[in-house]
Amino acid sequence: MSANSVLLDFSLEPSRIGDEVSRKDIVKLCKEHLEKYLPGLKISYDMLTEDGYLCILNAPGAVITTIRFFNQGLITINIEYYRAERDEAKLSFEQTRELENSLVQNLKLNHGQSLPTLQRGPVTRYFPTADERVIEYDIDKVLYDKRSEFQKIQIVHSKSLGNMLVLDELQNIAEADLIYTETLMRRGIENYKDKEICILGGGDGALLYELLKEEPKFVVMLEIDELVMQACNKYMNSICGDVLERRKSDNYEIVVGDCMVYLNKYIKDGRKFDYVFGDLTDIPISDTPTGEIWDFIRTILESSFKVLKPTGKFMTHGNGVSCPESLEMYEEQLGKLTPKVAFTKCTAFVPSFMEEWVFYQVQDETAVAANV
Amino acid sequence: MSANSVLLDFSLEPSRIGDEVSRKDIVKLCKEHLEKYLPGLKISYDMLTEDGYLCILNAPGAVITTIRFFNQGLITINIEYYRAERDEAKLSFEQTRELENSLVQNLKLNHGQSLPTLQRGPVTRYFPTADERVIEYDIDKVLYDKRSEFQKIQIVHSKSLGNMLVLDELQNIAEADLIYTETLMRRGIENYKDKEICILGGGDGALLYELLKEEPKFVVMLEIDELVMQACNKYMNSICGDVLERRKSDNYEIVVGDCMVYLNKYIKDGRKFDYVFGDLTDIPISDTPTGEIWDFIRTILESSFKVLKPTGKFMTHGNGVSCPESLEMYEEQLGKLTPKVAFTKCTAFVPSFMEEWVFYQVQDETAVAANV
Repeated sequence: MSANSVLLDFSLEPSRIGDEVSRKDIVKLCKEHLEKYLPGLKISYDMLTEDGYLCILNAPGAVITTIRFFNQGLITINIEYYRAERDEAKLSFEQTRELENSLVQNLKLNHGQSLPTLQRGPVTRYFPTADERVIEYDIDKVLYDKRSEFQKIQIVHSKSLGNMLVLDELQNIAEADLIYTETLMRRGIENYKDKEICILGGGDGALLYELLKEEPKFVVMLEIDELVMQACNKYMNSICGDVLERRKSDNYEIVVGDCMVYLNKYIKDGRKFDYVFGDLTDIPISDTPTGEIWDFIRTILESSFKVLKPTGKFMTHGNGVSCPESLEMYEEQLGKLTPKVAFTKCTAFVPSFMEEWVFYQVQDETAVAANV
Repeated sequence: MSANSVLLDFSLEPSRIGDEVSRKDIVKLCKEHLEKYLPGLKISYDMLTEDGYLCILNAPGAVITTIRFFNQGLITINIEYYRAERDEAKLSFEQTRELENSLVQNLKLNHGQSLPTLQRGPVTRYFPTADERVIEYDIDKVLYDKRSEFQKIQIVHSKSLGNMLVLDELQNIAEADLIYTETLMRRGIENYKDKEICILGGGDGALLYELLKEEPKFVVMLEIDELVMQACNKYMNSICGDVLERRKSDNYEIVVGDCMVYLNKYIKDGRKFDYVFGDLTDIPISDTPTGEIWDFIRTILESSFKVLKPTGKFMTHGNGVSCPESLEMYEEQLGKLTPKVAFTKCTAFVPSFMEEWVFYQVQDETAVAANV
C-alpha cells in the first residue's frame, strides 16, 4: 500500500504572469487538461497566497490535486491518491508526460517537468546522495527494523543491489558493494600479510571478512553497536561471511564498545598497528569544520596516529565527489595533524551510493619520504 | 529559482486510525511539531475526503503545507514554497529528518519517510530509470533546448556526468558514457578492421566515432534527426569528436533520413554489411509486444538480416536489467525471426542511466553453428 504523488511543474515567461484574473484563467486551463485524465475533477477550494494563487481540486476515487501558481513564474501541480497493491495507477508515468507536454504546448509554457510517480508508504524507497539529491531504490522488502541505543538500523532488500544496511535512514552498504571494501583497503596495492590491523567501526563485517582473506597477523575490530552486527550476521552473509558469528578467533577479535576507550587503552599500553581503518561516520557536509562530528573526526585521526607504527597507515572513506567542500575541509584537518602526514586518495563508484566515493590513505610524512 | 517541495510520509497501526475526531487530533499534533520549524503556521482550510481528512496550512513566507490523513493508515505531509537562488532553505534536509523522527517518536507512528527536498523549476533534474524510479541528477545548466520535427532535444550539463543528451525527456547519453558505446560495439571482442558497417540511428555520433578508430572499410550511418546531430556536434565533442562535422569522408557517410527507406533500398540493391547496429529507440516497457514501437522493432530486425552477410551480426542495446519482462519479450521476438537467429547478451552499468543495461548480439544460427 502506498499513497501515490504525481508531481509536475511548469515555468512561464514573466510577461505571462499577469493579474489575479489571468492567473486564475491559467489554473482553469490546467484543470481542463487534467480533467481528461481525472474525469469529474472539481474545484473544492481556492485562495490567494502571499505570492500567487492556490487551488484544491477533487476527483472521484479521493484523488486530491493542488495547483499552485507562483508569481515568480512557476506552476506546480501535485496529484495525490491512495493506491492499493492490486490497483492500477490512476495516472501512469506515460500519461503524466503526455499531460505535461499537452500543457506546455497548449498553454505555451516555457518548460515542463514531471517526476515518475512517488510512492509514499511503509517501505522507504528514497535515499539521498552525498549532495542531497534524491535517488529512488528498487526496494521491495524490509527485512530488519530496530532502533539500538545508538541508531536506527534497517536491512532492506533491493532488487538490483541485494540486501542493504541502512543506518539512521542513510544507505550504508549493500551486497553489491564489494568494490567499496576493496577500494577502502586498496586490495592488490596494500600488503596485509602478517600485519597487525585495527578497524574502528566496521560493524557490517565486510572489511574484517575481506582483510582476513589477506592473511594478516591479527585484526582487532572496535564496534559500538551489537545490534548492527547481529543484523548483518543474519542478513548480510554474502559480504561478511561468518566473521560476526564468533567474536574471537586466532587471527581476529571483535570488541563491542566505544573505539575511543580502546584506542586510549592501546595508547597507554603502547600497542601498535600497521593499519588503522576509520570505518565510522562519513565526513559531514557543513559550512565549517566545527561541531561535535568534526571534533570526533579530529580526535580519531590524532589517536590513530598514536597507535600506528611509524610506517603505519590510516585508511578511511571520505565522502562523495559531489561534495568537494566537505572533502577539502577534511584534507585541511589532515594538514593540521601532528605528526605531519601526507595522504593519497582514490575513488570508486559505489553501487548502493549511486555515486563516486573518495577514499583516503594517510601516512606519517617521514615514512612517505623514506618510501616505506 | 525553484519551488521547493518537502515531502514526508508516515504509516500507523490500523488500530490508531480511529474516528474523525481522533484523525483531526493526529493532524493537530503534526501541526504542533511542524510549527517548531515553521513559526506562525495556521490552518487555512480543512475538509473530509472520501478516504480521510485533508488540512491546508499557511506559514509566513508563503509556505503552504498540506497534511492528509488516509484511512488506510497513511499520513502525507507536503510543504511547498518558493525559493530564490540566494535564499536559505526554510527547512533543510537535516531538519526534515529531525521533524520526521520527532513525529514518529512522539506520535508513536510505525514508520516515517522523508525525501530530500525536490526542486521544481526551469531546469529538469529528475529522470526515470527503465523501471520508472526517480533519479535526481546534478544538472546545473541547460545548454540546448529545441523541438525538432521528431522529438524534443535537450543538452544539459551534469556536474558528475558532463554534458548529457536528453531526448523527449529521457536521458540518452552523457560524456561519462564511453562504457555504453564500448559495450554496444563489444570493443576488444569484435574485430571491425576492414568491415562494412551500417548504423541505424546513432545521431549522437559516439558509436560512429568509436567505430572509426577500429579502421573499418566503411560505415554508413542512417539518422533521421538533423537537429540532434547539430546539437551533439556543438556540445558533445568529447564523445563524438568531429565525425558529425562532415557528413561524408572516405570511410564513412552520414545519411539524414528514415533508416527504413534506406534499408529497403539496400535490400533492393543487394548491398550487404558485416555489422548492423540498432542504435534507435529502447525496447518499450509494455504488457504485450504489440503496438507501433514493437512493430517497428520487428521490422528493423527483419530488414537488418536482409542486408547482413550470412556471417554478419546485428548489435543493439536492450533495456535495463530492472525490466526483465521487457527483455524477455524482445528475446521472444528474436526467437520468431527468419532466418533463425541465435543471440548473446552482455551488460554494463551505464553512468547516465544509473543502472545496469543489457546489450544484444544477434547472428544467423547457421553462422553461429559454424562458429564464424
